[in-house]
Amino acid sequence: MSSESESSRKIVTAAMLVIGDEILSGRTQDKNVAHVATHIGEIGIQMKEVRVIPDVEDEIVDALNHCREKYDYVFTSGGIGPTHDDITADSVAKAFGVEIDYHPEAMDILTRHYQTSGIEFNEARKRMARIPFGGELIDNPVSKAPGFRIENVFVLAGVPMILQAMMESVLPQLSGGAKMLSKSIGAHLPEGKVAEQLGALQKRYPEVSMGSYPYFKHGNVGTNLVLRSVNEGDLEDAYQELQKILTELGAEFDLPE
Amino acid sequence: MSSESESSRKIVTAAMLVIGDEILSGRTQDKNVAHVATHIGEIGIQMKEVRVIPDVEDEIVDALNHCREKYDYVFTSGGIGPTHDDITADSVAKAFGVEIDYHPEAMDILTRHYQTSGIEFNEARKRMARIPFGGELIDNPVSKAPGFRIENVFVLAGVPMILQAMMESVLPQLSGGAKMLSKSIGAHLPEGKVAEQLGALQKRYPEVSMGSYPYFKHGNVGTNLVLRSVNEGDLEDAYQELQKILTELGAEFDLPE
Repeated sequence: MSSESESSRKIVTAAMLVIGDEILSGRTQDKNVAHVATHIGEIGIQMKEVRVIPDVEDEIVDALNHCREKYDYVFTSGGIGPTHDDITADSVAKAFGVEIDYHPEAMDILTRHYQTSGIEFNEARKRMARIPFGGELIDNPVSKAPGFRIENVFVLAGVPMILQAMMESVLPQLSGGAKMLSKSIGAHLPEGKVAEQLGALQKRYPEVSMGSYPYFKHGNVGTNLVLRSVNEGDLEDAYQELQKILTELGAEFDLPE
Repeated sequence: MSSESESSRKIVTAAMLVIGDEILSGRTQDKNVAHVATHIGEIGIQMKEVRVIPDVEDEIVDALNHCREKYDYVFTSGGIGPTHDDITADSVAKAFGVEIDYHPEAMDILTRHYQTSGIEFNEARKRMARIPFGGELIDNPVSKAPGFRIENVFVLAGVPMILQAMMESVLPQLSGGAKMLSKSIGAHLPEGKVAEQLGALQKRYPEVSMGSYPYFKHGNVGTNLVLRSVNEGDLEDAYQELQKILTELGAEFDLPE
């Protein structure tokens, strides 16, 4: 077996830590999880857990140490700005048991940026150049202050526009595995009507994960049926069988692109 | 000190478990966290942690047992429908070490509902009446299949419309503590400009949590400064001082309602 086909079968996993009181309080709606999950999914990395935690050092350290041990990759968002509540870099250093100090390259980038823009490079802004020992910078084309990677952990900004820009340079650094393929059907029926047949179908295709998501829209009841698998043949077979089941139940359904 | 003022000072905490592969894959954007966090916040319960986990029994059991021990309340969303992937009730029973079976009252509710609507009350739909021993039902006025409460854990539906309806009957069951009050300022300046003064202000008001959230909108750079505290006097004083700081910096700012 070639190493390529080995890697195409391997399950590669990730977790994400969303760091910030604003998401927890409900004031701000997170947009970063869906972005990261979708983009790593496309290269064969499955998001397995997300934790939203406050700007509290012990919480960050505990969650990070749990996740970096359990999953292949960990992404964090938030807490790397210039203000006193930006404690992610220090917490990451503590989790890894390494020192943290001004990173020469980060200082260069920020010094040039603030010189060019005529903005004072004050002590608070210099905090953004503090990187745990062993960290490699992640480019921030939007506002310059870099993220960083240390081992399997990628420390990203919380502002969605910046996180998305950082992910552009992170994605090529990741080694994906088996790609999770998915097919979905929008069925115009309540999920209780197809539940038994779906359960039986699931038993016949253990390698296809079958999810059922009811919706209530404009007075209509329907169910999105989602099949996911790393095995393309099984996925296609199960998808065809599911359409046959729905037809036999007399249900209309849509097949999205 | 009266018991009322005792309860108004107590910090009451909560966590939420969002259960479902669909949120993790990035296909579906969670809307339930913000709803629950906002509504419990209004009665003095602080959301301290959120975990998004897959439909996997061990993951649900571990996360639930961690959170129900650590926080005053736990809310779960998702996984209580009629299909094979709905394993939340069984996982909750396992976490509490109790049996699970058809709950007589839940069976009554569903029997009547399906009789009235002329829909078959099949085996799959009966699954929705399975409640861990000791669980008390939570009313579902939308689609009838109930949620349930067991000790400090509230098990809710994943469909936002149903979760929101369930929360209506959950909220009166909760005992809130100190209400987290907040004031915010939209400052028309980059956060690095106010970071040092904000850090110094934070030191003078340890009971006010000060958050700084930069934004980039239509080419403008700005910062939302959010002050949060259970101490109304400190909050107001810090808020006034912060406005003075921004004025001295020559920054324009908005004071939202």
